[in-house]
Amino acid sequence: MTVRFAILGAGRIGKVHAGAVASVPGATLIAIADPMPAAAEAIKAAYGCDIRSIDAIEASADVDAVVICTPTDTHADLIERFVRAGKAVFCEKPVDLSLARVKECIATVEAAKGTLMVGFNRRFDPDFMAVKAAIDAGKVGKVEMVTITSRDPGAPPPDYITRSGGMFRDMTIHDFDIARWLLGEEVTEVFASASVLVDTRIGELGDFDSANVILRTASGTQAIITNTRRAAYGYDQRIEVLGSDGLAAAENHGENRITLADKDGFHTAPLLNFFMSRYTAAYANEIAAFVAAVAEGAPTPTTGHDGLMALALAEAALKSVAEGRMVKVSEVL
Amino acid sequence: MTVRFAILGAGRIGKVHAGAVASVPGATLIAIADPMPAAAEAIKAAYGCDIRSIDAIEASADVDAVVICTPTDTHADLIERFVRAGKAVFCEKPVDLSLARVKECIATVEAAKGTLMVGFNRRFDPDFMAVKAAIDAGKVGKVEMVTITSRDPGAPPPDYITRSGGMFRDMTIHDFDIARWLLGEEVTEVFASASVLVDTRIGELGDFDSANVILRTASGTQAIITNTRRAAYGYDQRIEVLGSDGLAAAENHGENRITLADKDGFHTAPLLNFFMSRYTAAYANEIAAFVAAVAEGAPTPTTGHDGLMALALAEAALKSVAEGRMVKVSEVL
Amino acid sequence: MTVRFAILGAGRIGKVHAGAVASVPGATLIAIADPMPAAAEAIKAAYGCDIRSIDAIEASADVDAVVICTPTDTHADLIERFVRAGKAVFCEKPVDLSLARVKECIATVEAAKGTLMVGFNRRFDPDFMAVKAAIDAGKVGKVEMVTITSRDPGAPPPDYITRSGGMFRDMTIHDFDIARWLLGEEVTEVFASASVLVDTRIGELGDFDSANVILRTASGTQAIITNTRRAAYGYDQRIEVLGSDGLAAAENHGENRITLADKDGFHTAPLLNFFMSRYTAAYANEIAAFVAAVAEGAPTPTTGHDGLMALALAEAALKSVAEGRMVKVSEVL
Amino acid sequence: MTVRFAILGAGRIGKVHAGAVASVPGATLIAIADPMPAAAEAIKAAYGCDIRSIDAIEASADVDAVVICTPTDTHADLIERFVRAGKAVFCEKPVDLSLARVKECIATVEAAKGTLMVGFNRRFDPDFMAVKAAIDAGKVGKVEMVTITSRDPGAPPPDYITRSGGMFRDMTIHDFDIARWLLGEEVTEVFASASVLVDTRIGELGDFDSANVILRTASGTQAIITNTRRAAYGYDQRIEVLGSDGLAAAENHGENRITLADKDGFHTAPLLNFFMSRYTAAYANEIAAFVAAVAEGAPTPTTGHDGLMALALAEAALKSVAEGRMVKVSEVL
Repeated sequence: MTVRFAILGAGRIGKVHAGAVASVPGATLIAIADPMPAAAEAIKAAYGCDIRSIDAIEASADVDAVVICTPTDTHADLIERFVRAGKAVFCEKPVDLSLARVKECIATVEAAKGTLMVGFNRRFDPDFMAVKAAIDAGKVGKVEMVTITSRDPGAPPPDYITRSGGMFRDMTIHDFDIARWLLGEEVTEVFASASVLVDTRIGELGDFDSANVILRTASGTQAIITNTRRAAYGYDQRIEVLGSDGLAAAENHGENRITLADKDGFHTAPLLNFFMSRYTAAYANEIAAFVAAVAEGAPTPTTGHDGLMALALAEAALKSVAEGRMVKVSEVL
Repeated sequence: MTVRFAILGAGRIGKVHAGAVASVPGATLIAIADPMPAAAEAIKAAYGCDIRSIDAIEASADVDAVVICTPTDTHADLIERFVRAGKAVFCEKPVDLSLARVKECIATVEAAKGTLMVGFNRRFDPDFMAVKAAIDAGKVGKVEMVTITSRDPGAPPPDYITRSGGMFRDMTIHDFDIARWLLGEEVTEVFASASVLVDTRIGELGDFDSANVILRTASGTQAIITNTRRAAYGYDQRIEVLGSDGLAAAENHGENRITLADKDGFHTAPLLNFFMSRYTAAYANEIAAFVAAVAEGAPTPTTGHDGLMALALAEAALKSVAEGRMVKVSEVL
Repeated sequence: MTVRFAILGAGRIGKVHAGAVASVPGATLIAIADPMPAAAEAIKAAYGCDIRSIDAIEASADVDAVVICTPTDTHADLIERFVRAGKAVFCEKPVDLSLARVKECIATVEAAKGTLMVGFNRRFDPDFMAVKAAIDAGKVGKVEMVTITSRDPGAPPPDYITRSGGMFRDMTIHDFDIARWLLGEEVTEVFASASVLVDTRIGELGDFDSANVILRTASGTQAIITNTRRAAYGYDQRIEVLGSDGLAAAENHGENRITLADKDGFHTAPLLNFFMSRYTAAYANEIAAFVAAVAEGAPTPTTGHDGLMALALAEAALKSVAEGRMVKVSEVL
Repeated sequence: MTVRFAILGAGRIGKVHAGAVASVPGATLIAIADPMPAAAEAIKAAYGCDIRSIDAIEASADVDAVVICTPTDTHADLIERFVRAGKAVFCEKPVDLSLARVKECIATVEAAKGTLMVGFNRRFDPDFMAVKAAIDAGKVGKVEMVTITSRDPGAPPPDYITRSGGMFRDMTIHDFDIARWLLGEEVTEVFASASVLVDTRIGELGDFDSANVILRTASGTQAIITNTRRAAYGYDQRIEVLGSDGLAAAENHGENRITLADKDGFHTAPLLNFFMSRYTAAYANEIAAFVAAVAEGAPTPTTGHDGLMALALAEAALKSVAEGRMVKVSEVL
């Protein structure tokens, strides 16, 4: 079975997914929708698909699945519409910035027996998958401590901060998901310590740019997430899992793999500076995984529940910062 | 200008080039030729091009350029035919196993004012390009010593040995080209020491599976190439350039970038085990460079002369092994 | 001036300091004291010093300085006695397990205008010193986040847990000191999350074997400490400092620097497995720094105040674990 | 048994060996001899030994062993004198710059049933020992190719060139010894290619500053040595052994183990810049090995024969450069 796709939204991430759909075996790109004609035309020109309205796609019999790449505040509505229309749905994170709305949306998906995969692309990074595979193969024994270093190269413009829901809901949400995935046990408690060290305007907007978060599970295993919006040396993305028998760690990706040596020492390139170049393979792999699940009628590897739980951890982190204490996830869910 | 391509030969490397042509902006794949219908059909299915005979392609007005991926003994003839037909030609190395035939072929290309690029893909590896760029930017000062470690993961089947012209003409030829490129000065003398350590059948066929080669230029700068047909840990491809002010080195590519640690120590993955996975980017880049040259009417970055000189170094190496002495390149050219 | 030393306590750490005193230029070992004759004899045999009682050393006119390597519960008393006797004192950490006693002891030292250096050896590790020098030279810009990974290879025997005051006062205390030193600003708040994952007997004794700690300063800079009593791959000791302009990181020390590669990949040795082999240079350097300070009449690089503050952070961490909230250091001091 | 030592020569290397003798258990330093009173006094002051003349040491009943650290042209004579006097002899390399004289000297040692260890310190470097141990444990399978990168940080003054016998006899001689040791099979053929790239004065003296050497054994295994007198990034000392089942490699030693990252990338320190700091442990270990052999009456781990063979390879290399051909070692021995 070839899964026939439409993509909703032809912006930056829409283009990435269009490319992925076009190149993944078993998938074909039927249509693109975007209010900006030029953006949609560019996708059409590149991949030879139709341009259709969202309404038209909803009604299209030749579309099996949609990828939602529209602004965050439209995600939940579109998920509900398309699930009801019988389409398999892949939606960029987050489902919504409101936990209540996310729960409602998931209920709708479940009622419709629909398919919803939330785009936590990092789970599909080849290195992170290799770490997970090592854990699952017992290479580190029982997982005890997860350490996630996740640093953006630079802070986004202030207006993005507002739209995105702030650092925990926008940036750390990926790390929350990775922590849950690697811990292999649900997180029950969250402590977060957040600061404004990079850009005072971020603080004026009520957000943070630097944070450390501790997550705990019922059995006492823990994860640490260390975040910042500024890393002069590039996009710093490392994970490390300590278990009873050892450690599994994924290293960073530099711009190249050459070393220069001179009288001052040895020099290697900065890290890849952009999430799309760092996670190129992850974006392709997540669409391939979605295609495989839809084609086989199997569960998707990430779900609406994963979207809910990652957002709940973000809410708990915000509450923890406000109250200076460990917050139970059950307090916010 | 879009460069319209035909590919001659739909084997392993033909498929790689078809994919590259299909994805490089500014190029389009018009036709594929192969005596094996199934092979040609596969390319047609993947990229939507025509299947045509070599004769038909030669006569096709809608083809600007060809990529020759046929067996080595057909290369020189096809280059001559297609250059005379006014097509730009990209040919896999080697042009021919006979130096005389290569010279003749180059003369034909020159007489026809044709375009010939020889597929020394490694010059287009992003890391090796970064090393070259560092040299050209003066980061290592004056180049003095080039060290090339080039080890295949395993020996080819004996019948390939015969067809390929032996290790120096088939495998080391890439290293000869890289050495010339990095030294930035023509090689004038060659010493080679070859052994049979991996597979006695290779020795029975008169070839070698392990060799060290020293190259010298007129100014006394040197290159060392160390080759073997067996590296248990994968496809070992390293270059290192020592200059008066420092060193530039390109590291190997592992299967992933994770580290596992346990009571026995730290463990990382074997190297990518296959030249096509190691040099994926290089194959794409070389076609892009060819397209750019053809589109702009500019010289190609590698030429028939490069093919000739690399083969001459192989011949000199063979003579050196036979005679146990340093051989001047002028003795074989 | 040659500083004439006596060492109180000829146990494991006493031997290390005896060796340091014997080999540091400008210092000479005059006497050793230990209730176990065999231990004292071993030091005498190795370095040719006298064996004297603690009382005799206190009264010795030919002793300028003492190194206190006796059990923790004797430290504060001995510091006070020897400072009053006019000797310069180097004391192993901690000064005492009671904050009140430490304060009292420091007050005594100050009243006597005495010299007290507390043995936070890690500040004298050549790599950690290089990190600090890089910070001080402005290489990373303004310090924002410190990450300390500090993992013991294996848990100590349960009876040690009791005597030592528990993980925070015994093991993390070193990391607290390093964090204060690297942050360059006093820590004002502590959050700690502790678990028993390695050895249930440790939990039965009321202690922990795995912990993550977040430290904050008034300006919002933060440090994370991640601790465990078990790392299968050896003694894991890393520090990393993120600043506005970059990162400075100290790597681990393996048993050797060789790499083995085989069909399974690349393998390097486990980490040095013992704090004394990992920090050999640090132990020598700290005594040299003490000798230099005493000889020049200069302040020692670590002081009783450093001992007090590191213990206060341990107390705050314990309180944080008990109460599940961020604890101000002022609450415990 | 404690081995009682005298050291002949209190220069740079004499000081190193004096320190080693003083610190190795089972050895004691009795006397130092040097025509420069100040040099001998410095050793005496540091270690409390006697100052004696060479004649007096030869006659000293309280001296079991000597370490010869005098100028090269005195080595052979002193070896013979002290072996005849019944002393165990450790002599710095080379035994002599004349192969004939070395053979004669070895004959004298054998006739006297004397003990002679030649100071090839690198065999005692902990990392190189770990590589050798890995080979001996079968970790790389059958040894096929040895690669030695050996680069001095800077060229010695021209007058040293003359005294030392030139690059092959002075610098490469260490690499020849390491190659023999790692190949585990005697070298039978040598090819060398030498250039003057660093300092024209070295060329005017008839020597070289840059060279590549290929060594072959009867079974066809090979070693490559790449040398230069200038490496801007420090003292570059790497070995790599390829076998049928894998690779063993010893990495370089930097000045520290910290990494700095900034907008230009990642930076680590230059290499240790001096052979004495790079090989500190090797110097201590070789004296310990000599002491152990003397104490046990066992064969020393390196012998006069090793000194002879390494020099023979240097002679063969010189002949190879002169004649531009592979030279059999039997031609020079």
